[in-house]
Amino acid sequence: MKGTVGELGEFGLIRELTARLTTTPAVALGPGDDAAVVAAPDGRVVASTDVLLEGRHFRRDWSTAYDVGRKAAAQNMADIAAMGAVPTALLLGLVVPAELPATWPAELMDGLRDECQVAGAAVVGGDLVRGDTITVSITALGDLRGAGPVTRSGARPGDVVAVTGWLGWSAAGHAVLSRGFRSPRAFVEAHRRPEPPYHAGPAAAALGATAMTDVSDGLIADLGHIAAASGAGVDVRSGAVDIPSQMADIGQAVGVDPLHWVLSGGEDHAIVACFPAGTKLPARWRVIGEVLGRSALPRVTVDGAPWGTAGWDHFGGDGEPG
Amino acid sequence: MKGTVGELGEFGLIRELTARLTTTPAVALGPGDDAAVVAAPDGRVVASTDVLLEGRHFRRDWSTAYDVGRKAAAQNMADIAAMGAVPTALLLGLVVPAELPATWPAELMDGLRDECQVAGAAVVGGDLVRGDTITVSITALGDLRGAGPVTRSGARPGDVVAVTGWLGWSAAGHAVLSRGFRSPRAFVEAHRRPEPPYHAGPAAAALGATAMTDVSDGLIADLGHIAAASGAGVDVRSGAVDIPSQMADIGQAVGVDPLHWVLSGGEDHAIVACFPAGTKLPARWRVIGEVLGRSALPRVTVDGAPWGTAGWDHFGGDGEPG
Repeated sequence: MKGTVGELGEFGLIRELTARLTTTPAVALGPGDDAAVVAAPDGRVVASTDVLLEGRHFRRDWSTAYDVGRKAAAQNMADIAAMGAVPTALLLGLVVPAELPATWPAELMDGLRDECQVAGAAVVGGDLVRGDTITVSITALGDLRGAGPVTRSGARPGDVVAVTGWLGWSAAGHAVLSRGFRSPRAFVEAHRRPEPPYHAGPAAAALGATAMTDVSDGLIADLGHIAAASGAGVDVRSGAVDIPSQMADIGQAVGVDPLHWVLSGGEDHAIVACFPAGTKLPARWRVIGEVLGRSALPRVTVDGAPWGTAGWDHFGGDGEPG
Repeated sequence: MKGTVGELGEFGLIRELTARLTTTPAVALGPGDDAAVVAAPDGRVVASTDVLLEGRHFRRDWSTAYDVGRKAAAQNMADIAAMGAVPTALLLGLVVPAELPATWPAELMDGLRDECQVAGAAVVGGDLVRGDTITVSITALGDLRGAGPVTRSGARPGDVVAVTGWLGWSAAGHAVLSRGFRSPRAFVEAHRRPEPPYHAGPAAAALGATAMTDVSDGLIADLGHIAAASGAGVDVRSGAVDIPSQMADIGQAVGVDPLHWVLSGGEDHAIVACFPAGTKLPARWRVIGEVLGRSALPRVTVDGAPWGTAGWDHFGGDGEPG
């Protein structure tokens, strides 16, 4: 594909973008009509919207359009999974400057499509508008399949807190990129392209999770959302949190305690959930703490003490719900 | 509410915005969690996304934030209705500059809420991001209640073409505003705040509509979408199209043939549908034309001849599907 967005024109670009898409049996009607039609066999639909702006949420010199697409889809579908639902569909509101090469939105669409395929969903529609700042607004839909929804508000004192997925990898990758490096690749890749454990959301719902969220703002901050919504406290045991040796090496290289990345770094979209004590959890879940009774602020502690790093403050003190 | 978006902060503003919302029985879980949960009793969900940018889709000196909210919600829920579905929920992706008075997003939300109430829907979630250009990205959801979906592709030769709602009022209001006037108010209001006939969409589906869309780009252009998708032609009888005397007066005052507004003006979100000949239509539907066999370009004619105005060309000649 040659030329800019402006040269290709709105209809030409829409044709190029929709031609790249794949579908699933859940899609009764895809792009091209007034609206899409998607199966919602549960009789309820789960829906979440996120907006990503160039310069604020991504940088074109750090991430390819494909990576931005993967990440935008992942972050939204992680929200669906964190309710205990299976992602089914994604809609895209896209703002692009006329002078942008048309390959950029095309590769963004490839990224959205491929991440949707990982989760079992499909891009079903959207809107394309010309404007000054690249803006990627995603709405993800999902189906509960008779389960949940698992909200943030059901955690009860005595519940265990468990997590699955990656923690701190994106933040470590960001630290590497910020210092002008491009490796270690595993962490840079984790920053560019998170891998949320989509299946773990519905699985947690089936295991009886009492509260759940995905880690988008950082473990402590997102547990703060659960604690606030549940009227409870949470204590995290730092010794229970895994710090890979490679991450420890990066921490040493850049002078940062890697525990900071693991407890405060967001964007990996791990899934953190509370379960009644004694719940038999699959091997990939790691119990990292406990739900306490209603506590004074801060609601989330680490080894019984406030977690007083800059990362903590950065996310708004008490981890207020967003 | 005092201060700017930046002074109120993200969480403060989100609190203000969600506090203004109302709900419906279809909303199982509203804003504040990872995702919303909305009833989809039909077992399918209808979904559509639209993006509005300041400067391109609205002007703050012409429209209040409240009007922008009404219009943004209306245009999206009209897409839902045009599938034959009942709007149920709306999600908002909002980009606002830090220096914007916080009253602006608050009044936008009031507009979204009130238009949702007209249609029987509710705002159930969203995302708030700071950026340079006010951007309002809306996703509307709807339920088919066992009907439709009525796509653009089902029109058959011999079908009648009928329309309900307002036609050309927004364009006439735009012409008035463009010339620096603020009246006649009815047309200026129609431009600021369209009134789609939401109920007409599901009603048309129940009456056996073969194809349907809402008039967002202009009657001829949107009929062009139906004609192209259906592989058919459409002829509109200009004498069957209503031109209110007040609109004729404005046309005379500003030197524009009002038929141009009625045939080419968009944004009123009237509903145009095709029905098998002989379908008994309620009084508020007006038969304005007929579906023909596959025709040469242009696919849509007026009184058997191409409609060769600037408005026609402006929307891309053949009325290509978007």
